[in-house]
Amino acid sequence: MIADKMKGFVNNNSAIRAMFEEGNRLAGIYGRENVFDFSLGNPNVPAPASVTEAIREIVDEEKSTFLHGYMSNAGYEDVRECMAKSLNKRFGTHFNSNNIIMTVGAAGGLNVTLKTLINPGDEVITFAPYFLEYRAYVGNYDGVLVEVSPDTDSFQPKLDEFEMKITPKTKAVIVNNPNNPTGVVYTEETIIRMAEILNKKQIEFGTEIYLIADEPYRELAYDGVDVPFLTKYYANTIVGYSFSKSLSLPGERIGYLVIPSELPDYTNVFTAASIANRILGFVNAPSLMQRVVAKVVDEKTDIDYYDRNRKTLYEGLTDLGFECIRPQGAFYLFMKTPMANEKEFCDMAVKYNILVVPGSSFACPGYVRIAYCVSYETIVNSLTAFKKLADEINK
Amino acid sequence: MIADKMKGFVNNNSAIRAMFEEGNRLAGIYGRENVFDFSLGNPNVPAPASVTEAIREIVDEEKSTFLHGYMSNAGYEDVRECMAKSLNKRFGTHFNSNNIIMTVGAAGGLNVTLKTLINPGDEVITFAPYFLEYRAYVGNYDGVLVEVSPDTDSFQPKLDEFEMKITPKTKAVIVNNPNNPTGVVYTEETIIRMAEILNKKQIEFGTEIYLIADEPYRELAYDGVDVPFLTKYYANTIVGYSFSKSLSLPGERIGYLVIPSELPDYTNVFTAASIANRILGFVNAPSLMQRVVAKVVDEKTDIDYYDRNRKTLYEGLTDLGFECIRPQGAFYLFMKTPMANEKEFCDMAVKYNILVVPGSSFACPGYVRIAYCVSYETIVNSLTAFKKLADEINK
Repeated sequence: MIADKMKGFVNNNSAIRAMFEEGNRLAGIYGRENVFDFSLGNPNVPAPASVTEAIREIVDEEKSTFLHGYMSNAGYEDVRECMAKSLNKRFGTHFNSNNIIMTVGAAGGLNVTLKTLINPGDEVITFAPYFLEYRAYVGNYDGVLVEVSPDTDSFQPKLDEFEMKITPKTKAVIVNNPNNPTGVVYTEETIIRMAEILNKKQIEFGTEIYLIADEPYRELAYDGVDVPFLTKYYANTIVGYSFSKSLSLPGERIGYLVIPSELPDYTNVFTAASIANRILGFVNAPSLMQRVVAKVVDEKTDIDYYDRNRKTLYEGLTDLGFECIRPQGAFYLFMKTPMANEKEFCDMAVKYNILVVPGSSFACPGYVRIAYCVSYETIVNSLTAFKKLADEINK
Repeated sequence: MIADKMKGFVNNNSAIRAMFEEGNRLAGIYGRENVFDFSLGNPNVPAPASVTEAIREIVDEEKSTFLHGYMSNAGYEDVRECMAKSLNKRFGTHFNSNNIIMTVGAAGGLNVTLKTLINPGDEVITFAPYFLEYRAYVGNYDGVLVEVSPDTDSFQPKLDEFEMKITPKTKAVIVNNPNNPTGVVYTEETIIRMAEILNKKQIEFGTEIYLIADEPYRELAYDGVDVPFLTKYYANTIVGYSFSKSLSLPGERIGYLVIPSELPDYTNVFTAASIANRILGFVNAPSLMQRVVAKVVDEKTDIDYYDRNRKTLYEGLTDLGFECIRPQGAFYLFMKTPMANEKEFCDMAVKYNILVVPGSSFACPGYVRIAYCVSYETIVNSLTAFKKLADEINK
């Protein structure tokens, strides 16, 4: 008796559940430390000590009815001002509190944005491989997700195909940079060209096309690589940010949206997004955590930990002959499977207690995603298991 | 360029905004303490000291990656078990963790429930007066909200009209008990009769009709009145709970859904609701607050504070000749306005620095809602202002 839209999700859920149970089964037999579970993007680096400090200080100092009470649906004014100032300092932007809406993580922010913008049948473009939840989010508002196929050389967006797929019905484009699942960082050149295309198409069709920058991995960039801040390149940009990875707080559901005043329809978009935050049932981002992130906004997670994992895993796997996309951001490594059917590879890997996610879960078959937000020991020990797996394949 | 569905909300928003700004304008002129702002349901009683204690203990004792990390979308297993046990102890029910989904407040829980159940065009019945957000929530999933008109004698649901309005398209009924905005508690007799009607109609139409109990005010009941726990009366009941009022944590967005195993389609409903929690962008209820409410699940807010407000306000207003519904729950008093057009009354009240919400905002014109979750001093001082208002009206 559930809604028709939910039936597919429920049927599909059994596969995810099966993988989860397989992990538990293996852990039961071999011990959790001997299972190489690379399936989840759940940070293993603890939140900075300053987060715990901030929580203690805030509950000691702030009045309960203020700290745990309702505030404006967009969030505490001072917290929003703090986010704006931090961005301005880092990116030379000119935001203030009226450009910020605190959200229940980036997933909440994306849903708020899509609720704000999408009419049924509107098209939202994204670039494969991509986080498959985008399809569900767009579907929540009866939008149509349009995929641009992957460029399996560079894993930068295929801009020619992108341009062809923009239609008068295109309402938004979702860009995830650094990228889940590839770990690739879209370059400034890519972004400039993308903005040119969008501007041209807006004029050609007389429409507004919103560029939605989904940025939970913004702070996780390695090798000194630059992650372009998209509002500087294209006026109709909305940024969705999360502290899930930057401060290892994924369970707390805290993030924000940036809605720049440069949006031609800024006032309506900002007002509608604040209302969408309310009527979708978020109401506001969790209040204590709003105040916490304001106190530690410029703190960073221990990115060196992930970087060591990244290098060790990348070098280890390429030494074993696996073809990997060299990741420069996030905590994912995207690896080409020796056989075309990557699900077959996943099944083989399980025999060596290795759990990875098939690329078809990101609209990119023939690859697997390895989430290296695990202990360094897991990385090191897993390489022995990957060696055995490689040996079986090369046999 | 915003979505069509959002345009009405944005236009309507200016009225709410105007009221908010009027409150600030008055506070600027007369001082905040001389403005009698009864417009918001934001608890003025602080959270129990045990909440702050629990936060301190938890951040001291629990591992960061566990405390702030992802867990199952339904919430921590032990937290859900704790909620189930607390309910079982209080209501003699037989729930376990598989009947509980932790949610982003009751608003999040309602949206998860409606996403789980509603196909476009499905009808959801509720009883006027009601919290107007229900209309937005049902609209999020293209459902149709069907109102049963108010019984202005008792403010119990009009069950004859209810029975007539159930059709083969009726998928759910939302009941808010204790009620916002009336403060009335629906009696056991009402609930038994409602369950009989629903069972009869399920058989007549061969459908499942879900009774959704929205219970953010469950713990706020006065005069020793009993608030029936609906799963005991009707098998297809889903309960949405929130700690917003019971622990004065509205900003933290923490609550839960109860999905009893007695639902004929229990497995699909529970699975779909867990997935809906994820794909709507909530992902999971805030993690630290999940662990906090588990520690203090049987704590209560200082209900005596609200009770004193309730009695003083009710007696004061009736002494002045105003006709009030005697509230036995929540922290709202619903008052009949001396003139039929209650908006005229609201405008007059503003002249005496009194801010109340017109009943038409709850589909019940001719009344106003007075939220008495304010300081006792505000209640006492406001009665002088109400006296002047009464004098002007009777002049």
